[in-house]
Amino acid sequence: MDNINLKMLAKELNLAVSTVSRALRDSYEISQETKDRVRALAEKLGFQPNPHASSLRQHKSKTIAVILPEIENNFFSQVMNGVESIAQEKSYHVLIYLTHEDYNKEKNFLQLLRNGRVDGLMISFSNTTANFEHLEACKNAGIPIVMFDRVSDKIDLPKIITDDAEISFEATEHLLKKGCKRIAFLSISGTLSITSGRKAGYLKALEKSKIKHTPLVAECSPYDEQNRQTIRKLLQKNPRPDAIFAAVEKLAINTYEVCNELGINIPGQLKVVGFSNSQAAALFNPSLSTVVQPAYDIGRMACSILFKIIEKKMLLPNEKKLVLRSKLEERCSTTRGHKL
Amino acid sequence: MDNINLKMLAKELNLAVSTVSRALRDSYEISQETKDRVRALAEKLGFQPNPHASSLRQHKSKTIAVILPEIENNFFSQVMNGVESIAQEKSYHVLIYLTHEDYNKEKNFLQLLRNGRVDGLMISFSNTTANFEHLEACKNAGIPIVMFDRVSDKIDLPKIITDDAEISFEATEHLLKKGCKRIAFLSISGTLSITSGRKAGYLKALEKSKIKHTPLVAECSPYDEQNRQTIRKLLQKNPRPDAIFAAVEKLAINTYEVCNELGINIPGQLKVVGFSNSQAAALFNPSLSTVVQPAYDIGRMACSILFKIIEKKMLLPNEKKLVLRSKLEERCSTTRGHKL
Repeated sequence: MDNINLKMLAKELNLAVSTVSRALRDSYEISQETKDRVRALAEKLGFQPNPHASSLRQHKSKTIAVILPEIENNFFSQVMNGVESIAQEKSYHVLIYLTHEDYNKEKNFLQLLRNGRVDGLMISFSNTTANFEHLEACKNAGIPIVMFDRVSDKIDLPKIITDDAEISFEATEHLLKKGCKRIAFLSISGTLSITSGRKAGYLKALEKSKIKHTPLVAECSPYDEQNRQTIRKLLQKNPRPDAIFAAVEKLAINTYEVCNELGINIPGQLKVVGFSNSQAAALFNPSLSTVVQPAYDIGRMACSILFKIIEKKMLLPNEKKLVLRSKLEERCSTTRGHKL
Repeated sequence: MDNINLKMLAKELNLAVSTVSRALRDSYEISQETKDRVRALAEKLGFQPNPHASSLRQHKSKTIAVILPEIENNFFSQVMNGVESIAQEKSYHVLIYLTHEDYNKEKNFLQLLRNGRVDGLMISFSNTTANFEHLEACKNAGIPIVMFDRVSDKIDLPKIITDDAEISFEATEHLLKKGCKRIAFLSISGTLSITSGRKAGYLKALEKSKIKHTPLVAECSPYDEQNRQTIRKLLQKNPRPDAIFAAVEKLAINTYEVCNELGINIPGQLKVVGFSNSQAAALFNPSLSTVVQPAYDIGRMACSILFKIIEKKMLLPNEKKLVLRSKLEERCSTTRGHKL
């Protein structure tokens, strides 16, 4: 590897290394003529300052980290687009870490980030994360941190979330209005903030309704086949649920798969609403009614707030806990129709 | 920020800094007893070596970069899962850069990566990339590089691709066998390797068929509304195409959207095949026949080959240009039926 370095530039120009360095940093101590000579050669030879040396000098890595449960999911990929749009504006680099819902991986990642590799980090917890010492340790090391979507109230750190309980209340009421009397709630297992928020909205709507059926709650996994098995069992109960509210994108897909397999008609025999940020939900057979989260904005806001902390700016009170609104898109999977 | 550093450990243990450093690196010069003392304290205080200092000493950043056109796409998100699985095995960090099909962004990213920030990089070109000097410059700087999916034959670097021409020939023959006589080919604009490979397969199948109609080729953009407009025009031609082969996932979605809008029945009036790695394609109305690329394996193989280069291992001849097989999944969007 034949990298151009400061020494080589200095030798070629017959200048001191420190002069070349200061010229490149636009120091007032160096004449314009020298700066022009240094820059012209640096450009010609494709010189790039060594980022690790710069990081050591400036105590800045120009890098942030994003820790996510998964990326093959429209919500998180749209969040990444939002994060990346801000990082590019700031000329920052973005490290991505996928936990695949594994607390131990999450812990290892955070440990690796504790000493100067990044200027800040953003995290959405895995569903197996039940204690937050790993994040506390990063916080105590002075690293700027923002939590988003899957957050914890046990740590005093800024968080960007959506109105999970409110929108889930609205989605459940929508099913009740369409005549549903036995609504099942599907969510991923664990103690995630989003799960408890969404479940609370579902329970509140049932409680408020005249029907007051026993809540039907099924916990799912990150594995499609396991989820289909859970849903099969649920749909073979007697009496069968007449609606499913899937609190995670992939569970709505698994529900459709099982209905196709068992010959259950949507919406005739089962109405379905799902959290989903997929454009393709409108093309499903039948088109899927969805709760759409402002994923891109979550990414942008979380990253903007992270940069405010990195740049030591004051956060506004609402930036410590920012709640963005989701919206319900009604489509054919919840239309009222005769039972087949 | 109160980071624990080598100096603090040394002071606490009453040892020289160099002794502490060597103990942590498991040097043979240090006794087991001292190593145990140093490690116990390092663990207790949560000491992490400064990655920039380590990078400078070892000329290793333990980081690779992945440069992608977009992430909100099942193909690229599955590629990232594959990349990340290998990077985790190697305890490497992964930087992600999204070009959003913009050559200038791609060029800027590569320029930032030229001097030591990463130990290697993987790239899939944007559709506006027509010259490769930016990648040549990285290559000349000695950075290990692997290209995947959207590659170029103009640079001598390892590439991982799929059998674009062969699978597109197969998909077009599938449409011909189902009775289609006017098959349109949709692809994103630009001079991408994947576009020319896929188009070549389409043209070869038409050429071989008895129909030999004039090829119907439409170039699309990264923007949904613009694509829908292109597809609307195509479907309002007289005579109208009786099939669309969409060489990119999002174009199949746009085709369905326009058919819904114009009341065109799939597969009765129009048969559709699309490149897609989405599990949800099976749930579309009607279920979409797809060309499925081995995206996860592309990510894993590209990253494994990158590490072979980083570790200065010899590449096998087939690792310089690795061609993985895609497969055609026939579903309802191409079933033969009476025209409505």
